Amino acid sequence: MAQKSADRDRCATGVEGLDTILYGGIPRSNTVLLTGSCGTGKTSLALEFLIHGALKGENSLFVSVTENSEKLLANIIPYMFFDKSLVKSGRLVFIDLPVMYERLGMTKAELGMEEVDLLVAAIRDLAEELAIKRLVIDSITSVCYKLKTSEKIRDFILKLGKALSDLNCTSMLVGEVPAQSTAYSSFGVEEAIADGIILMANMERRGDLLRTLQVIKMRGTMHSRARYVLDLTPMGVLLVPWLKGGSTG
Amino acid sequence: MAQKSADRDRCATGVEGLDTILYGGIPRSNTVLLTGSCGTGKTSLALEFLIHGALKGENSLFVSVTENSEKLLANIIPYMFFDKSLVKSGRLVFIDLPVMYERLGMTKAELGMEEVDLLVAAIRDLAEELAIKRLVIDSITSVCYKLKTSEKIRDFILKLGKALSDLNCTSMLVGEVPAQSTAYSSFGVEEAIADGIILMANMERRGDLLRTLQVIKMRGTMHSRARYVLDLTPMGVLLVPWLKGGSTG
Amino acid sequence: MAQKSADRDRCATGVEGLDTILYGGIPRSNTVLLTGSCGTGKTSLALEFLIHGALKGENSLFVSVTENSEKLLANIIPYMFFDKSLVKSGRLVFIDLPVMYERLGMTKAELGMEEVDLLVAAIRDLAEELAIKRLVIDSITSVCYKLKTSEKIRDFILKLGKALSDLNCTSMLVGEVPAQSTAYSSFGVEEAIADGIILMANMERRGDLLRTLQVIKMRGTMHSRARYVLDLTPMGVLLVPWLKGGSTG
Amino acid sequence: MAQKSADRDRCATGVEGLDTILYGGIPRSNTVLLTGSCGTGKTSLALEFLIHGALKGENSLFVSVTENSEKLLANIIPYMFFDKSLVKSGRLVFIDLPVMYERLGMTKAELGMEEVDLLVAAIRDLAEELAIKRLVIDSITSVCYKLKTSEKIRDFILKLGKALSDLNCTSMLVGEVPAQSTAYSSFGVEEAIADGIILMANMERRGDLLRTLQVIKMRGTMHSRARYVLDLTPMGVLLVPWLKGGSTG
Amino acid sequence: MAQKSADRDRCATGVEGLDTILYGGIPRSNTVLLTGSCGTGKTSLALEFLIHGALKGENSLFVSVTENSEKLLANIIPYMFFDKSLVKSGRLVFIDLPVMYERLGMTKAELGMEEVDLLVAAIRDLAEELAIKRLVIDSITSVCYKLKTSEKIRDFILKLGKALSDLNCTSMLVGEVPAQSTAYSSFGVEEAIADGIILMANMERRGDLLRTLQVIKMRGTMHSRARYVLDLTPMGVLLVPWLKGGSTG
Amino acid sequence: MAQKSADRDRCATGVEGLDTILYGGIPRSNTVLLTGSCGTGKTSLALEFLIHGALKGENSLFVSVTENSEKLLANIIPYMFFDKSLVKSGRLVFIDLPVMYERLGMTKAELGMEEVDLLVAAIRDLAEELAIKRLVIDSITSVCYKLKTSEKIRDFILKLGKALSDLNCTSMLVGEVPAQSTAYSSFGVEEAIADGIILMANMERRGDLLRTLQVIKMRGTMHSRARYVLDLTPMGVLLVPWLKGGSTG
Repeated sequence: MAQKSADRDRCATGVEGLDTILYGGIPRSNTVLLTGSCGTGKTSLALEFLIHGALKGENSLFVSVTENSEKLLANIIPYMFFDKSLVKSGRLVFIDLPVMYERLGMTKAELGMEEVDLLVAAIRDLAEELAIKRLVIDSITSVCYKLKTSEKIRDFILKLGKALSDLNCTSMLVGEVPAQSTAYSSFGVEEAIADGIILMANMERRGDLLRTLQVIKMRGTMHSRARYVLDLTPMGVLLVPWLKGGSTG
Repeated sequence: MAQKSADRDRCATGVEGLDTILYGGIPRSNTVLLTGSCGTGKTSLALEFLIHGALKGENSLFVSVTENSEKLLANIIPYMFFDKSLVKSGRLVFIDLPVMYERLGMTKAELGMEEVDLLVAAIRDLAEELAIKRLVIDSITSVCYKLKTSEKIRDFILKLGKALSDLNCTSMLVGEVPAQSTAYSSFGVEEAIADGIILMANMERRGDLLRTLQVIKMRGTMHSRARYVLDLTPMGVLLVPWLKGGSTG
Repeated sequence: MAQKSADRDRCATGVEGLDTILYGGIPRSNTVLLTGSCGTGKTSLALEFLIHGALKGENSLFVSVTENSEKLLANIIPYMFFDKSLVKSGRLVFIDLPVMYERLGMTKAELGMEEVDLLVAAIRDLAEELAIKRLVIDSITSVCYKLKTSEKIRDFILKLGKALSDLNCTSMLVGEVPAQSTAYSSFGVEEAIADGIILMANMERRGDLLRTLQVIKMRGTMHSRARYVLDLTPMGVLLVPWLKGGSTG
Repeated sequence: MAQKSADRDRCATGVEGLDTILYGGIPRSNTVLLTGSCGTGKTSLALEFLIHGALKGENSLFVSVTENSEKLLANIIPYMFFDKSLVKSGRLVFIDLPVMYERLGMTKAELGMEEVDLLVAAIRDLAEELAIKRLVIDSITSVCYKLKTSEKIRDFILKLGKALSDLNCTSMLVGEVPAQSTAYSSFGVEEAIADGIILMANMERRGDLLRTLQVIKMRGTMHSRARYVLDLTPMGVLLVPWLKGGSTG
Repeated sequence: MAQKSADRDRCATGVEGLDTILYGGIPRSNTVLLTGSCGTGKTSLALEFLIHGALKGENSLFVSVTENSEKLLANIIPYMFFDKSLVKSGRLVFIDLPVMYERLGMTKAELGMEEVDLLVAAIRDLAEELAIKRLVIDSITSVCYKLKTSEKIRDFILKLGKALSDLNCTSMLVGEVPAQSTAYSSFGVEEAIADGIILMANMERRGDLLRTLQVIKMRGTMHSRARYVLDLTPMGVLLVPWLKGGSTG
Repeated sequence: MAQKSADRDRCATGVEGLDTILYGGIPRSNTVLLTGSCGTGKTSLALEFLIHGALKGENSLFVSVTENSEKLLANIIPYMFFDKSLVKSGRLVFIDLPVMYERLGMTKAELGMEEVDLLVAAIRDLAEELAIKRLVIDSITSVCYKLKTSEKIRDFILKLGKALSDLNCTSMLVGEVPAQSTAYSSFGVEEAIADGIILMANMERRGDLLRTLQVIKMRGTMHSRARYVLDLTPMGVLLVPWLKGGSTG
């Protein structure tokens, strides 16, 4: 939405191109849906967002739902801008949601309405205790599989978003959609509740499969809605406009 | 529908281009479905419609279903034409539907037939008490999730439309459809009952994602059915014809 | 179907272009499905069909299912060819089906097989009592929502069609299909039973949304099957061939 | 299937073009699925097939499922080649299947396995008693709605086909598919059991809606598989090749 | 799969073009899915495969599921290469599966797990007793309708394939897919289990409907994967490459 | 994900082109989804991966779910690089999962949650006992049919992946998708959990059906995402870039 000079405070993602697109970063305390199909670089972007925050002194939390966080760590160690001490100092925290489920006794395949509230409270308390300012849930789709009904999914995202926003924490919810899907989310409700939507996609060009990024919506700031090509490099994520010069896509 | 000189009274939206398209505004007391996918600017347009009414002295009500109205207010404060005193004076009222659900004891996931009537009555009474002339429900899709069957959705929209029309109140029901969907509504019945349909969409042009607006139907007035490009600016919503001059889209 | 000189009697719709397409009008006593998505002008065409009949002295009945008939009347008053005295004199009758449901005690969400028969009898009796020669049900889709199974829908349309045909009454059943759908009906069975199908559609041309009309089928007469552009004017519905001269569509 | 000189006996349809396509007509005793969407001329073609048979002295039976046979008769009277005496003499018989259902006490919405056998027997007995050589069921799709499961539909068509084939009767089963569908049948099993498939379709060309006919499969004869344009005239059905000369379609 | 000189023994289909495509024929004891929509020539090809085997002294069995085998025989008698004595001598055997169902007491609409085993055993015993070397089931899709769950379909095809392979019998399972479908099978599991897939299709070219054949997969041999045009002639099936010379398809 | 010099250890597939694409091979202990429709060469590639490992002294296990492993062996014997002694020496082990199901008493059509754990443990124990370093499950889709719910599929793949990763075993899960599908998996969840996705496809070019390979995602290494043409030869799998030089695809 267009805005006067009295802009909301920003949470710079650390990905230079993305911060430019967003006129300085994500409006602080927004809940953003980072969505796309497999292999589009969602986890890499989310990690860079957290590492960048931790390097600037903001406590950051990665809530892993499908992947083992140890394995995840092994994969990001080679990043040039990554510093293991961030994890040791507690600036960058990894937690496996299945472990949290177990601790809360949520062993059934489907969570009930009260368990949704318990889960939101547990994440909120952890975020408050650790003074978390940046949070990633990878993936929200996996959580949705345990919620099942659109009512509970709406409820969970709304309440979690409100709780984190109250803590002034900026969040990225990683969404998974099937390959070649044009939808923004798997359950169709995640997108309507989020404050912002960053869409990552695979696009074939002359036999190559390019990664692209596009900000569809972001409450509280002006932003470009153009499509960018995303490059994963040892220095982190790079963004280039989809159409450089006058060439045809 | 085409009309003689004895035109129905108009409710100017305040968005200059849209009022021109509608030959002066929405026919007063119509219920309009404002529909589109995420990030197409539905909430911005609906808010401008209410603010404009409030500035002209018409009491306006925003019924928020998915988003916290406090957060919403924070996001519109920077609008150049927004004046905080409108809220203080009670000209512009924000209310969270979940709060109303709770007050009415509607805690179950699905509302029954009698609860539909209760909900309509509650909104009607509030609108009457506050002498509301413009009302927005954002989003009607979220309400539909609690109604579930097409029978109850038809019933709710028909009865609410009739009640608000009797109060001479002009309404916008914000509808959400999935990205790239060509449908006018999520449940397929909302569109058939509304007096008008304003369709907002995302259209890709050379790697950029443009917002467009098109009036599909509006009972009680002639109107353009052409597609317009919508621009969100600090001065509010701007409309430009999709095809300026003879260029190809 | 092609015919000899001994043509069936015609019921002129009053829309000049359409009567030309149909070689003089709808074969009297036919049941026609008038189908299309929202905003394609179905209700306007159906109303003009009834008003024209009333002006020629044929009693005409509009059975409103979703819209309040009072509101409907308010919207057609500005029509240049409309004359309020038609309603006062009883030549043009409006009735709300929900009122009839209530009178018949049909309050459940789904009608049973016997209720289908009762409903057909009630409409038939009313049509006979008022000596109705033209009848519109707007929309048959809404009625179908109360019938639910294809068996009951087939039964209802077959029996109603037979009953009205016996009264020598010509009928239009207004059908709603989703936007951009290529289907002729929502439940897929309405189209197979009707004597005729008039398809109304929205077609985009250079950013404008044109209304089109096409007669797909009409038992008992030869007819054009070409697509026409439909224009709603204060003088009523106008039809222009889709392709004038040699230009490309 | 390709054949030697010892060709099977033919049942000429009387539609000159179609008989040419089929190298003389439908192989006698075949069961043919005549399928297409609304308004493609299926009933007209099926009637012409029966009338032609009756004129040649072969007793012909039209089993009407959805339409009243009286109304049907009224519509074909103007055909130039139709002779009312055919009906009076019993050469051309019309029967309404709903009447037969009632006589057999098949009043439930879904027929059971034993009722399928009863229905086949009843049609067979009637065909035998009247010495029927050509039979049309319009539509088989409506019958399928009462059978519901693919098992019962397969069973019904197989047994009916066998029974009629034993009587040396050639049959056309009229199938309905949704508009723009590319399927050969509504339930997907009718097509696999029939001895032949004649596909009728609507095709848009420059704003006009042409009817086309194509023989997809015909056991027991060679045949063209090209698409033809079908014209309904007072003299009956005319066929013209889709592409005359070298012009582009 | 590519192979060394020590090639597996081949079962020549007798269709010259197909044997060339397969570098000599189907690897002996393979189970091949012969799949396509109605009218693509599947049964003709399967019959030619059996007749050719019988002529070479290999006992061949046609298991008919939907069509009466008597009628089938009547249709192939005109084939120039067909010799009635093959049937009399027992070299070419036709059997109706419904008859076998009855003998085994499998009268229910859905077969249970144990009945699957019984059916496999019955077919196996018959094949062993008659020393069958080539077997066709027309169609496997009809059998699947009685199995219903993907578990039982997998089970049936796996066990049948293993049993026939142990008898050194080469089999063709005829599969039916809907018109214009791009799937290889109706239930989606048949294709994954078969040793080979031969896809037959209808392709429209300039208003004509051509039959095409393509070998998608064949375990145990190298093969062409190009598309061929299939012609049904009195001399049997002929294959021509889809693109002769350099012309465009 | 992009990486520093401290690369993870690689497991060379032995397919030269694929190892180049992956900058040396699959990161050791990754679980890779090898997915594609029928006849795209998945099994051939998976076998070459195992044979290559066995030749280098790494114990390799092929878990066959749908095909009999004896038959499979018969088909690979002609491979030029295959050496029967690998099987005799126990370097290359084939095991049929149905046999394992039986041994574990898992005879029901659907496995329960505890049986998922038992199955993972059984595979893990076998892999540990035989000191397996490379494992293929062909196909994981067949296993999913026994798991049915997405919850159990996620659970199975996550736990199995973790167990095999702990044994430093690199795995390929063969996935089946329908022909022409653009999805990466049949159940939609396999792809989100795997560490890598290798997509194999059929692509038609001028009437020929080419096999293609594309690495969509691979955690722990940089890799090309271009599409390659795959050729099955007696010397094994060959890869060629989809677009050689500047020609158009």
